[in-house]
Amino acid sequence: MLEAKVHLVGAGPGDPDLLTVKALRLLQRADVIVYDRLVGEDVLDLAGPRARRIFVGKTAGRESVAQEHINALLLDLARPGRLVVRLKGGDPFIFGRGGEEADYLMAHGVSVEVVPGITAALGCAASAMIPLTHRGLATSVRFVTGHCRAGWWLDLDWSSLADPKTTLVFYMASLHLDEIVLHLVAAGLDPETPAAAISSGTTGEERLLRAPLHALRTALECRPLPSPVLFVIGPVVDALTSKDRTKHPVAMPIGTLLAHVAHA
Amino acid sequence: MLEAKVHLVGAGPGDPDLLTVKALRLLQRADVIVYDRLVGEDVLDLAGPRARRIFVGKTAGRESVAQEHINALLLDLARPGRLVVRLKGGDPFIFGRGGEEADYLMAHGVSVEVVPGITAALGCAASAMIPLTHRGLATSVRFVTGHCRAGWWLDLDWSSLADPKTTLVFYMASLHLDEIVLHLVAAGLDPETPAAAISSGTTGEERLLRAPLHALRTALECRPLPSPVLFVIGPVVDALTSKDRTKHPVAMPIGTLLAHVAHA
Repeated sequence: MLEAKVHLVGAGPGDPDLLTVKALRLLQRADVIVYDRLVGEDVLDLAGPRARRIFVGKTAGRESVAQEHINALLLDLARPGRLVVRLKGGDPFIFGRGGEEADYLMAHGVSVEVVPGITAALGCAASAMIPLTHRGLATSVRFVTGHCRAGWWLDLDWSSLADPKTTLVFYMASLHLDEIVLHLVAAGLDPETPAAAISSGTTGEERLLRAPLHALRTALECRPLPSPVLFVIGPVVDALTSKDRTKHPVAMPIGTLLAHVAHA
Repeated sequence: MLEAKVHLVGAGPGDPDLLTVKALRLLQRADVIVYDRLVGEDVLDLAGPRARRIFVGKTAGRESVAQEHINALLLDLARPGRLVVRLKGGDPFIFGRGGEEADYLMAHGVSVEVVPGITAALGCAASAMIPLTHRGLATSVRFVTGHCRAGWWLDLDWSSLADPKTTLVFYMASLHLDEIVLHLVAAGLDPETPAAAISSGTTGEERLLRAPLHALRTALECRPLPSPVLFVIGPVVDALTSKDRTKHPVAMPIGTLLAHVAHA
């Protein structure tokens, strides 16, 4: 029996090779693909030729309106026998608002299937060679939103975040970096804690910058990184850097260089 | 120029369709595949016919010896021109000890490339329809190891963990569930916080159980779940359960049922 259904699909961190097999198959069979700003052309190019593509990228400051529009659009598109793919950068359930879309669709009688994706933290960690957990350095890893309503401060439990045994990964945090660093240090995190900023991780545009937490902002001022940027904070950032990395294609000396600049 | 290289590859949560395209391609081209207990037959069946398969599953209580053995084996296998895949359940950098293996190999002059995988938390969340982050319910999500040396207590910062706005996902925590629940409640987490246990998530054997945090252990005693089990704790566990889920193939009434049993 056919039912109205929407597939909420993670597009992964950028590199089309990091799509799951399931996501690739759905893209190739899709009748309609509704996609975000964070989904790149390389990924969309894998869609079947007959797929209708609908861009619903959000513009800053107009998110809530756009989200209602997306919900209504998905409901409108969902029809028995039509393969609708809602394609989201990363993973649909990690800062993807996938829960809100699933909630709306299910409340309106539409079935939802979620296909997980490689979230940015996993993709960036792999290409920057940062083990997010590591014996003796990190017993947990935490993904945190660094985004909030324009003009507001972040509403986070800073003392909970300032755990030296937990790797922190901040998504969408460029606008609030100062606030994050200040709060973490005030809450007791060592200002010398290694940190990294990774721009467009896993794509050909990937850029990596390493600096101690207190110097991260200065390093970014010397060499700004284009959005989207992910921040990783914790001793694991330097766990593998002491080793010979000259052979590794993603080892980027610019990061080391900038950390020195920031120290000077 | 050929170099000695090992690919540390995430095999994802279980469903072979959740391998990345890159992982699948490497499996099909591999000369040697060194794999763990958590990698299923369905995934291994995707390897090319000429690939030599080496099982290095760990047995409880003998981990450190086995890890040294694995490191030495990988170093021994790595040869210029030979495609060596070190295949790990989930993601190599999330509780996969991938960092340790990379560290060892790089220190011995072997190049390492990491291919991220869908970690169990993302796979289980998608199939159990639990959005790990959700507006108004969770501004962050945290993956925590619930495993430690035999006979020891977990060494975790419980007050940091007891943040009601953070979804907690415990890996490998079955032996320490009592300790985790007691510490979290003692540190201030509401004992009524929704929780879920997910066994063999994303596979045909998937089993799901939901209960309030304080009743999770009782529910599991009524209906034990086979290993590996992932625990998810936070208001997001129930975020989508109030909606009509009768059409969804992974909605499992047994969870609801058991939660009632545990309450009675």
